[in-house]
Amino acid sequence: MKLKHIEHIGIAVKDINESIKFYEDILGLKCYAIEEVADQKVKTAFFKLGDTKIELLESTDPEGPIGKFIEKKGEGVHHIAYAVEGIESALAVLEDKGIRLIDQKPRKGAEGLDIAFLHPKSTHGVLSELCEKK
Amino acid sequence: MKLKHIEHIGIAVKDINESIKFYEDILGLKCYAIEEVADQKVKTAFFKLGDTKIELLESTDPEGPIGKFIEKKGEGVHHIAYAVEGIESALAVLEDKGIRLIDQKPRKGAEGLDIAFLHPKSTHGVLSELCEKK
Repeated sequence: MKLKHIEHIGIAVKDINESIKFYEDILGLKCYAIEEVADQKVKTAFFKLGDTKIELLESTDPEGPIGKFIEKKGEGVHHIAYAVEGIESALAVLEDKGIRLIDQKPRKGAEGLDIAFLHPKSTHGVLSELCEKK
Repeated sequence: MKLKHIEHIGIAVKDINESIKFYEDILGLKCYAIEEVADQKVKTAFFKLGDTKIELLESTDPEGPIGKFIEKKGEGVHHIAYAVEGIESALAVLEDKGIRLIDQKPRKGAEGLDIAFLHPKSTHGVLSELCEKK
């Protein structure tokens, strides 16, 4: 499996508009897209820095994964996503090595990427995602 | 303030040797340095991916910041570090904008970088670090 770079860092926030202000006005980044991913019950905002994006995630439903994460751990980094070549074969290799997959096969995520999550119980506590732009 | 890229992602782990195995054997990265930072009561391991590093952090003391973090939140992403040009002036600008600084002026971190942390209460829950290689 060949990871290319860190595609994005997903950050769970309570109020996406307040957080966008921080990343724009304080850190000087530029939000280039806001997108709702109904499937994941989140509203997302994207910033680009080098070859990595910052993806802010606000829950649109307290019972969604981000709502539950914030209830348990508070705001903070929710996941790390790696850009990979050949996501299907990467998932097969990981499963062979005993990694617990949340997604057995890729599904569509934000920005039209093929994505799949690995379970944090298999990744030393960091919810990890593979992404591929096809 | 001009951020250049994400310098590293700091990840709190219970057992650095077990976690190194995950990043090497499963994700295919290569640990290129292990360093103890006595000041921070941590042992660190570094991996490079694109222009960003992954920094694993194992506490060498349960009362150190990583030990306390894991006790409270479990293993996971501890901080995000941004590469910046002109760290002293960046800190002055941030303080002017009302950001709470953990380090009023830069100090030496791992790999000889000048570093300073911003308080997560000012950064929407993400402990954030500025770094500069001088």
